[in-house]
Amino acid sequence: MSKQIRFNAFDMNCVAHQSPGLWRCPGDQSWRYKDIEYWQDIARIAERGLFDAVFIADVLGTYDVFDGNDLAAIRQGAQVPVNDPVQLAAVGAAVTEHVGFGITAGTAFEHPVPFARRLSTLDHLTKGRVGWNVVTGYLPSAAKNLGQHDLVEHDARYDHADEYLEVIYKLLEGSWEDDAVVRDAESGVFTIPEKVHHIGHHGTFFDVPGIHLSEPSPQRTPVVFQAGASPRGVRFAAENAEAIFIGGPTKEIARSTVQRIRKALVDAGRGRYDAKIYLLSTIITDETAAGARAKHADLLSYASVEGTEVFFSGWLGVDFAAYDLDQPLGAVQSNAIQSALAAFQGDNERGETWTVRDIVRLGGIGGQGQVFVGSPSEIADTLVDIVEETDVDGFNLAYATTPGTFEDVVDLVVPELQRRGVYPQEYAPGTLRHKLLGAGDRLPANHRGAQYRVGGPLSTIDDVTGTGRPDPASGPGPTTA
Amino acid sequence: MSKQIRFNAFDMNCVAHQSPGLWRCPGDQSWRYKDIEYWQDIARIAERGLFDAVFIADVLGTYDVFDGNDLAAIRQGAQVPVNDPVQLAAVGAAVTEHVGFGITAGTAFEHPVPFARRLSTLDHLTKGRVGWNVVTGYLPSAAKNLGQHDLVEHDARYDHADEYLEVIYKLLEGSWEDDAVVRDAESGVFTIPEKVHHIGHHGTFFDVPGIHLSEPSPQRTPVVFQAGASPRGVRFAAENAEAIFIGGPTKEIARSTVQRIRKALVDAGRGRYDAKIYLLSTIITDETAAGARAKHADLLSYASVEGTEVFFSGWLGVDFAAYDLDQPLGAVQSNAIQSALAAFQGDNERGETWTVRDIVRLGGIGGQGQVFVGSPSEIADTLVDIVEETDVDGFNLAYATTPGTFEDVVDLVVPELQRRGVYPQEYAPGTLRHKLLGAGDRLPANHRGAQYRVGGPLSTIDDVTGTGRPDPASGPGPTTA
Repeated sequence: MSKQIRFNAFDMNCVAHQSPGLWRCPGDQSWRYKDIEYWQDIARIAERGLFDAVFIADVLGTYDVFDGNDLAAIRQGAQVPVNDPVQLAAVGAAVTEHVGFGITAGTAFEHPVPFARRLSTLDHLTKGRVGWNVVTGYLPSAAKNLGQHDLVEHDARYDHADEYLEVIYKLLEGSWEDDAVVRDAESGVFTIPEKVHHIGHHGTFFDVPGIHLSEPSPQRTPVVFQAGASPRGVRFAAENAEAIFIGGPTKEIARSTVQRIRKALVDAGRGRYDAKIYLLSTIITDETAAGARAKHADLLSYASVEGTEVFFSGWLGVDFAAYDLDQPLGAVQSNAIQSALAAFQGDNERGETWTVRDIVRLGGIGGQGQVFVGSPSEIADTLVDIVEETDVDGFNLAYATTPGTFEDVVDLVVPELQRRGVYPQEYAPGTLRHKLLGAGDRLPANHRGAQYRVGGPLSTIDDVTGTGRPDPASGPGPTTA
Repeated sequence: MSKQIRFNAFDMNCVAHQSPGLWRCPGDQSWRYKDIEYWQDIARIAERGLFDAVFIADVLGTYDVFDGNDLAAIRQGAQVPVNDPVQLAAVGAAVTEHVGFGITAGTAFEHPVPFARRLSTLDHLTKGRVGWNVVTGYLPSAAKNLGQHDLVEHDARYDHADEYLEVIYKLLEGSWEDDAVVRDAESGVFTIPEKVHHIGHHGTFFDVPGIHLSEPSPQRTPVVFQAGASPRGVRFAAENAEAIFIGGPTKEIARSTVQRIRKALVDAGRGRYDAKIYLLSTIITDETAAGARAKHADLLSYASVEGTEVFFSGWLGVDFAAYDLDQPLGAVQSNAIQSALAAFQGDNERGETWTVRDIVRLGGIGGQGQVFVGSPSEIADTLVDIVEETDVDGFNLAYATTPGTFEDVVDLVVPELQRRGVYPQEYAPGTLRHKLLGAGDRLPANHRGAQYRVGGPLSTIDDVTGTGRPDPASGPGPTTA
């Protein structure tokens, strides 16, 4: 295999993340999520394993589809309580040198001007090790609590997100020229003002006439992460993302998704491999195959049926409380339940004889992702096979318990993969983007965001006076007091 | 003197902060503001000096009143570029144990639901060492760039801020009961859902029906910082603030401001000393008086006239570019210029013979705050005198250069004050709030925010079903799928 396998640690600023109930497992430390030391430990472990990034998911609401309320989610600690992911990147970066930090933030809830400054600040503080996982809004409970009575319709959300990214690109790529900051004590010039441009954005959703507030950071635009499986979502990802997260219950489905994404990348004017694709998975391993199976059985004993129902109800938009868990799947007339089944069809050897409970049980660890159980050698066989058969670039690793699941991968699987020559022996130098794509710190010229640079085809900077400022003759501009 | 003097370090995520041009001084390191290590150094120095907090100011726009544009501000590095302050607290907390972090954030630009979560996250990560400096919006350029065509009128901004804080208090104080999170592995209950309440806020500006997303942090509501000098601003501060920042060019003016604030605290149903009051000041010191004066002269030689004009134009709302710097003040017909003069009247021994340049020169270090120059003993005399005469609790210390100005205070002035018994010998234990006010980690019962607690007189939690959820009989509630 010519490709080197890549790993991300998939985590969230809460307990148990994708494995509801596993916070009860004695070894689990996810309850320390409120502490700096916990996140610094996670960052160190990921760096020891040469992971690309610690990827922090997020929700801004509760899972309240199950039984029509949020009681079960709260009882189970099912992604609630949940803290802000943004503040974790710098604390992790403070004790590591290479590993990246992927931070989830939505386009629906914060104005792009302060958010762009948060991104620049993150990229400065981490010295170019930050990724932004773009989500377009998701839980209805979040929208309600933020005074938006309904999430706007799915495709329209992507239109809104399109313009949001346009503003972000203009601010991060098109406002400050690389050599604007000179810090020249002799002349007293800190920044050459003619090299800092008003972006002059006047769009459907946003009106941003002025400059970005931060000077250029190592990557400018952080590495863009995305997970979107719908046709509109894939188009959005293909136009913007540099790391794409997918699910895939079977190799066939994963391969088909990867092919669809790679084709969309080409359709967006980019290269087939200009975005790395990671398959959501959970790895349960131990020194021996028997040990791994015993560990899996032990972990499963802590999984929460109710917590899993809470997640499936939220993800699929159907209330699992309405179903008898012991009902055979063949008798369930529900597209959503059949979709849930589809997520596990790789495991469904029993087919029609399965019950709802079987599905819920399988989702108890690692959510809708696949769970691989085995010795390091078995796991390595599986991963290599998947990469060869599906053309994914790597795996987005959920945990059963943390940091245990990650430590097992780092201590047992990574060395096995390295022995086989299919995993890096050391980090590549440079920023997260350069580590991922090997072509420099900044967005490549064929990326959408690069088109908004000064002189680029999509730049809208107000520059008619040659000073980077609007023409005073055209009336009161945004800088007129 | 019975009172112990308190210090805050006043800083900002940018260069030079209140001392434009001082980034040119060879010893200044504020250009390292983009680095984690810089902020960890500042935090360590402040903790070595037993400071209450590192207080990070912020603006979300540029100073563009001077000459009607932002060119001079950019050229001078005058609070632009400027990065996000929020991300600095956790990195500083990671290497310190006691010092607090005061983070500035506006009520105008982020919805209170995600912002409340940022506050809880900050308070968790710092283990109860965070303060929130509430600003109601300030630079017109920020409003324009965020699509608000004008800042709303001054008093109306405070009405909006009042409701913003109401939502914040409801979320932080009134949603989760102290014993809601039980993390009981036996029963599988992480949180008792009946102890997590929907806040049911339906106001003029915000509609927030649901729960707060974070579990209770050590302080719940961070220590509330405020700086507002107008009558409406003082009322707002008296109702909310626990640390208040004032300017005062003379002892008489400072004393009058302190009296006005202490009376307003009582009018708001609180104690006269329920908020600590800090006077904006800059201390230039050295081993000897002559050394301090020489240092001051050297520092002043790096101050930027244009940068100071940029700040005064922004702060006072009048374009200093319109004035001849060498015009005698007596001949200037401008209320704003006369106000600028008032800010320095303590120094104005020359009175009417002053020119505009004299004012600008005096503002070149430390902005509108007083600058004290002298040996440690002279400085100690001055500070003790001010505290005795004005009833301030301490000083909000701006810097000429950083970390130099802070190091001088910590290494020279703090020991002198300690020898005199007017400065703490060690930190008090506990959270920032307990260190400041000595009465526990949480808002005291007589504070406005405490009224929103479960069972409190202003609580609006939806609780008619006894489950903390709206009555299902009253129709689709916020949790109905």
